[in-house]
Amino acid sequence: MPYELYYWPMIQGRGEFVRLALEEAGADYVDIAREPDDEAGMETMMGFMGDKNLRHPPFAPPFLKDGDVVVAQTAAILLYLGPRLNLAPEDEAGRIWTHQIQLTIADIVAEAHDTHHPVGVGLYYEDQKAEAARRSEDFRKSRIPKYLSWFETVLERNTSSKTHLVGRAVTYADLSLFQLVDGLTYAFPKATKRALAKTPHVAALHEAVARRPRIAAYLASDRRIPFNQEGIFRHYPELDG
Amino acid sequence: MPYELYYWPMIQGRGEFVRLALEEAGADYVDIAREPDDEAGMETMMGFMGDKNLRHPPFAPPFLKDGDVVVAQTAAILLYLGPRLNLAPEDEAGRIWTHQIQLTIADIVAEAHDTHHPVGVGLYYEDQKAEAARRSEDFRKSRIPKYLSWFETVLERNTSSKTHLVGRAVTYADLSLFQLVDGLTYAFPKATKRALAKTPHVAALHEAVARRPRIAAYLASDRRIPFNQEGIFRHYPELDG
Repeated sequence: MPYELYYWPMIQGRGEFVRLALEEAGADYVDIAREPDDEAGMETMMGFMGDKNLRHPPFAPPFLKDGDVVVAQTAAILLYLGPRLNLAPEDEAGRIWTHQIQLTIADIVAEAHDTHHPVGVGLYYEDQKAEAARRSEDFRKSRIPKYLSWFETVLERNTSSKTHLVGRAVTYADLSLFQLVDGLTYAFPKATKRALAKTPHVAALHEAVARRPRIAAYLASDRRIPFNQEGIFRHYPELDG
Repeated sequence: MPYELYYWPMIQGRGEFVRLALEEAGADYVDIAREPDDEAGMETMMGFMGDKNLRHPPFAPPFLKDGDVVVAQTAAILLYLGPRLNLAPEDEAGRIWTHQIQLTIADIVAEAHDTHHPVGVGLYYEDQKAEAARRSEDFRKSRIPKYLSWFETVLERNTSSKTHLVGRAVTYADLSLFQLVDGLTYAFPKATKRALAKTPHVAALHEAVARRPRIAAYLASDRRIPFNQEGIFRHYPELDG
């Protein structure tokens, strides 16, 4: 039975971290909310979420259905999929370290979202532009460099490989760091370029993941939704610098 | 060998979710950064974090040391401790569901922090009061009710118990939901009281956890740091309403 991924069909968003893992593994999966088209797929997803018999209701997409198991929260989905897709180490210490890195990626992803929505997710960007400008300045100057230099340190201290965060094989954390760098580069091209110049291992990992055959094929396919102004990573030139 | 918890000694903060689990289990642990006093303890913690030989460096406190294993990120620490402290179900589906709930608690905790720091963590509250007022309004009106009603639904749909989020025994997620409600009640007493009136199972869980013998003893001890204006949950009357 294929995995069923449920996520907003018009954006990469948090679902993309799951899509990348499924694609890298060549897993059999259905991106439910895009089948047979976005409109019908959304209806299926909203219907599923509204089911009052659902014992483990997701707070929000993305969520994954694997037979009777329903898992929401991006990092929890990857924790669940990691061993099944061979994208996590076999030992417990390695798995928890991979998960810890993923949670740190989740933290900066949430901060990246808040650069354009510092006041509230229910308001338009246009209604919080002044606040967004202040928050983005802090994000560019302090947060991007701080996070990327932590990932650089993790790569430097990995004695098995300098192109993998954990051990010598690809994990979902590598795929997620690729996606983070890709998103930051889209949203804040100038600031991210400056930060990456100081974190060469992070930059190299981003390029190495993009060249992996299944990832490259995925990125070139129409399954990869382009970045746009509805997602987590948005390019407002006035917020970069 | 006792567990070693590393966290800022002057606040409850994210470390409190770990402290509550260790306390409920009656675990042998040392709150490193408070030993023998806060100043010396902080020095120990910062020295540990700065150790260039650390293979798995924490991005930030809290982190837990268990022999050679170092785990950071609150939710990952609880994932690690859960089975060891008998605060998580035995089956994988139950564990991942407990973790998913914990990650959702982590999300609202981060949002609660950003009510007083919507622009940046490096700035004082006084320098972002206008933005904080707008963000808090959205948090009070939309976010607190939305999250608490999700927890209410989780409790309603638990066929084994209405006072536990998962199964019929206490898990770290129950302790964390207690702490969330406690913190929200401190920071936003009016708004939280209104929300709790509509989520009676959440309110009852908060009271039930507070009455657990080891938790009650902990809350009455000087190991429980009082809420204050340095932590995640801060009471600025102008942000409540």
